[in-house]
Amino acid sequence: MILPMRSDGESTRGRILDAAGVEFAQYGLAGARVDRIAANASASKERLYAYFGDKRSLFLAVLTAHLAEVTALIPVSADDIPGFVGGVFDFAQAHPEHFRMMDWARLGGDHDLLPVVPAEVLERDREAIRQAQERGLVDPEWEPSELFALLFAIALSGIQSSAMSGTGDASPADLARHRAAAVRAAGKLVAP
Amino acid sequence: MILPMRSDGESTRGRILDAAGVEFAQYGLAGARVDRIAANASASKERLYAYFGDKRSLFLAVLTAHLAEVTALIPVSADDIPGFVGGVFDFAQAHPEHFRMMDWARLGGDHDLLPVVPAEVLERDREAIRQAQERGLVDPEWEPSELFALLFAIALSGIQSSAMSGTGDASPADLARHRAAAVRAAGKLVAP
Repeated sequence: MILPMRSDGESTRGRILDAAGVEFAQYGLAGARVDRIAANASASKERLYAYFGDKRSLFLAVLTAHLAEVTALIPVSADDIPGFVGGVFDFAQAHPEHFRMMDWARLGGDHDLLPVVPAEVLERDREAIRQAQERGLVDPEWEPSELFALLFAIALSGIQSSAMSGTGDASPADLARHRAAAVRAAGKLVAP
Repeated sequence: MILPMRSDGESTRGRILDAAGVEFAQYGLAGARVDRIAANASASKERLYAYFGDKRSLFLAVLTAHLAEVTALIPVSADDIPGFVGGVFDFAQAHPEHFRMMDWARLGGDHDLLPVVPAEVLERDREAIRQAQERGLVDPEWEPSELFALLFAIALSGIQSSAMSGTGDASPADLARHRAAAVRAAGKLVAP
């Protein structure tokens, strides 16, 4: 795989975001240490502060970057809602740090740090659902935003199931079963 | 309402469990302070340690007591799975501290602190689903434990929706809509 060239500033920014994601996922906002993030990113603390401001702003920057990644990677395809749920399931398994950061922010009462999905993205997704409802592909009785909340809950159920198993780790076979169940559930939910 | 009489030891135990639930939900295991729990329970630290051992054991005792409460309050009724989901939804709204403690344990990597549902309870609930499947009340293609994981994810989606709204608080009207959507989703999921 050929990586796109990045300018020095961009690559430092990217390294800081990556290191911050690891640190915040592990320790939360309160427990994270900026000097450790800077060291792991091979950047100076001065550089970090110049790019991102304080630790709180850096936390929000990481979550916002994650969210942009999700919405770009997994657009809602109204023709294939179960496939969308499968995509979110896979993203959650590949990027547990994103959901850990959301949980830390929620537990810490830092609701201002939960990144807000841009209004145009929300509207685009709701419109996709509405059109699918008109075309008879999706149960017309769902209010689109309620349906989304349920689909996300189902897609993220794999994280919860792993935690409930008592070990925090699910075997590949368990994961495959959870994924198939989530995709099947999405299909039943949208079926008119 | 007439409260049942409790012996002095029982009421002290109960007060400690209640105070610990509040403290752990707020600060997590690492951040919780035993002296604050004892003070809020009007008990001595010595008494607390004598009853519950160390802070870790107290955390587990609180979660185990919560879990016993849920499984006693909300038995799975195979004839009315949507009603069961509504019951879990209501419990989650009334007792956010239970789910906050579960999240703290998960984030802290303290998977040994997540209480395990007793095998006989799991088996009882699975058996209820199997019988409902035989009687044609529940889609026979679901593996019972996968169906449970999905039903819980749906029942708890209200917590996530509130957090996602950016304020952490949902209006009563929002909650009523989330609850109705969760109950409706459970009905669609189990429909054969």
